[in-house]
Amino acid sequence: MRDLLPEYDRLTATGEPVGRAVVTSVWGSAPRPEGSSMLATRDGVMAGSVSGGCVESATALEIAEAIGRGSPKLVTFGVSDEKAWEVGLACGGTIKVLVEPGVRPEVLAAARGDGGEVLATVTEGAGAGGSARVLADGAVEGALAGVPAERLRAAALDALRRERSATVTLETPAGAATVFLEVFPRQPRLVIFGGVHIAVALVPLAQLLGYRTIVADGRQAFLTRERFPEADELILAWPEEAFGQIGLDASCYICILSHDPKFDEPALRLALRSPAAYIGAIGSRKTQAARREWLRSEGFTEEEIARVHGPIGLELGGRQPAETALAILAEMTAVRYQGGSGTGEQRGGGAVPA
Amino acid sequence: MRDLLPEYDRLTATGEPVGRAVVTSVWGSAPRPEGSSMLATRDGVMAGSVSGGCVESATALEIAEAIGRGSPKLVTFGVSDEKAWEVGLACGGTIKVLVEPGVRPEVLAAARGDGGEVLATVTEGAGAGGSARVLADGAVEGALAGVPAERLRAAALDALRRERSATVTLETPAGAATVFLEVFPRQPRLVIFGGVHIAVALVPLAQLLGYRTIVADGRQAFLTRERFPEADELILAWPEEAFGQIGLDASCYICILSHDPKFDEPALRLALRSPAAYIGAIGSRKTQAARREWLRSEGFTEEEIARVHGPIGLELGGRQPAETALAILAEMTAVRYQGGSGTGEQRGGGAVPA
Repeated sequence: MRDLLPEYDRLTATGEPVGRAVVTSVWGSAPRPEGSSMLATRDGVMAGSVSGGCVESATALEIAEAIGRGSPKLVTFGVSDEKAWEVGLACGGTIKVLVEPGVRPEVLAAARGDGGEVLATVTEGAGAGGSARVLADGAVEGALAGVPAERLRAAALDALRRERSATVTLETPAGAATVFLEVFPRQPRLVIFGGVHIAVALVPLAQLLGYRTIVADGRQAFLTRERFPEADELILAWPEEAFGQIGLDASCYICILSHDPKFDEPALRLALRSPAAYIGAIGSRKTQAARREWLRSEGFTEEEIARVHGPIGLELGGRQPAETALAILAEMTAVRYQGGSGTGEQRGGGAVPA
Repeated sequence: MRDLLPEYDRLTATGEPVGRAVVTSVWGSAPRPEGSSMLATRDGVMAGSVSGGCVESATALEIAEAIGRGSPKLVTFGVSDEKAWEVGLACGGTIKVLVEPGVRPEVLAAARGDGGEVLATVTEGAGAGGSARVLADGAVEGALAGVPAERLRAAALDALRRERSATVTLETPAGAATVFLEVFPRQPRLVIFGGVHIAVALVPLAQLLGYRTIVADGRQAFLTRERFPEADELILAWPEEAFGQIGLDASCYICILSHDPKFDEPALRLALRSPAAYIGAIGSRKTQAARREWLRSEGFTEEEIARVHGPIGLELGGRQPAETALAILAEMTAVRYQGGSGTGEQRGGGAVPA
């Protein structure tokens, strides 16, 4: 939903009511995951996507009907692969879509916020229509009729950790409730130490991927606004001060790029003592070996040292700054969604299920 | 050099002379490849990079001296890995840099042009300072003293094919000439059929990677300027007409994303009959199997069918449109620089030599 905010604002500016459809469940090889949203007006002006082009027109009609009716509806679109090929659809899968006459205020607030929360909505069964909010710290606001808060909390935090919206079935005294957990992940932060050429290329790419971008360097010449016109934050400081100011946490993806041990070493030490989601460090294989040796001498364990991705980035083969930046971002993405466990073989085969 | 044109224009607008340094040779794990360029004024204002931060300051001084002197100079920067770590450099490698008092007109023209050419400059030995130009069709403009045109042509076209600047040694009656071949590749073109959500995310990413972006679709609703504000070209047409207009050639990276066989099938047929550098097609594994079956029935050989990358994109794990777009671009890059032969295992290990 977050990516549709500009389009939501544009569509509502005309005064027209804007309804929403959101994918709550998928089976088979559905083109878009749970949480994918689409907006539409009664006139059929649409934005976003629930199936990458397969059933958008039908969904727009459902939204128009929901606006007219003033009430939500759960709609199932199912197409088998063979059938799909015949009738002109290449989706292959089944999706359930919650069609609503408007975008609920709590959805808008969550989409506009910093993230780190889950909105739970009962879509079928006991207490249908009820909703509640679960925050990253475990706080539950509101309640779903008959669902113990601890059950809801556990399911929501699991979805939040996996950064993936999902539908779950929760038992209540009045029977099973089908609950859609819409996840609004905390915005990931790209923390770069070293405003080098690759950093210049990495910032705009990472912004397109939804990262908040922070570039730090101890060297003024590397950290000008001319070099980083779009960076969200520039911090002229040594690693201790810069990382302290940022507050390294699990939302941080740290790239250490300064090429200068007097910055890289303290930056690496601090990164390894943080719960950062990703730590990458530039340097050749030889440099990496020397660096690992140094980290051992600093008392870091092999397991800790293994958190450092270096040479940084997947080996895609390009050598231009933008290509190196792409390789870094691809590695960050692979680590983000596979918990760092994906080997090259597993992830190299080419398989976007879309 | 191409990426520095905006900065070149900005720097020269002040009337200050702007000199250039370009990497002509690298040994060991140098952070930036041959052809990497840096600009500087006499006051030390700089742009671009020859070593990712290692020797930029020293290079800026060399450029300032070249401007004062009015003549070029070949400079070697060498640092061993152990030494580098001690003295505050993490480069590990040796680079040769051609430092020039200005950007030569032929370099500017090539950088501003469509690409597909190589500028050859004798940096050392017989005929030092001489230069010539080799075009993609093999035409040679100018000559290097004593170097047969066919020898120069062969070396230049080889570098152009690999999209990589290089220094070669060519024999002349007066002895060996060291020749720097500065490659200006033809700008790659991203050709998307199907203006779906993933295409919307792919266009700005590909532009940051230097692609000219062309989106075609037979459906007006998918092809609005609102959806693609930055695309270089939008073509509302069926595949036959669209691809005919584009003129598919070896500079084309084709992504077939329409989700609709009535577009995808003719698009795929035309793509496979073209010399395109990359062909990717969206769809689940099941869809891909059905598609391969259909291609066989159309008479395509297994070798031809193997050109189609599908499911499209490296498997990085993200499922948002921008993440799928990133996975596609990562796959295009891997194919571009490894001739499509890189398996997941080879390229998945993470190793940007920077």
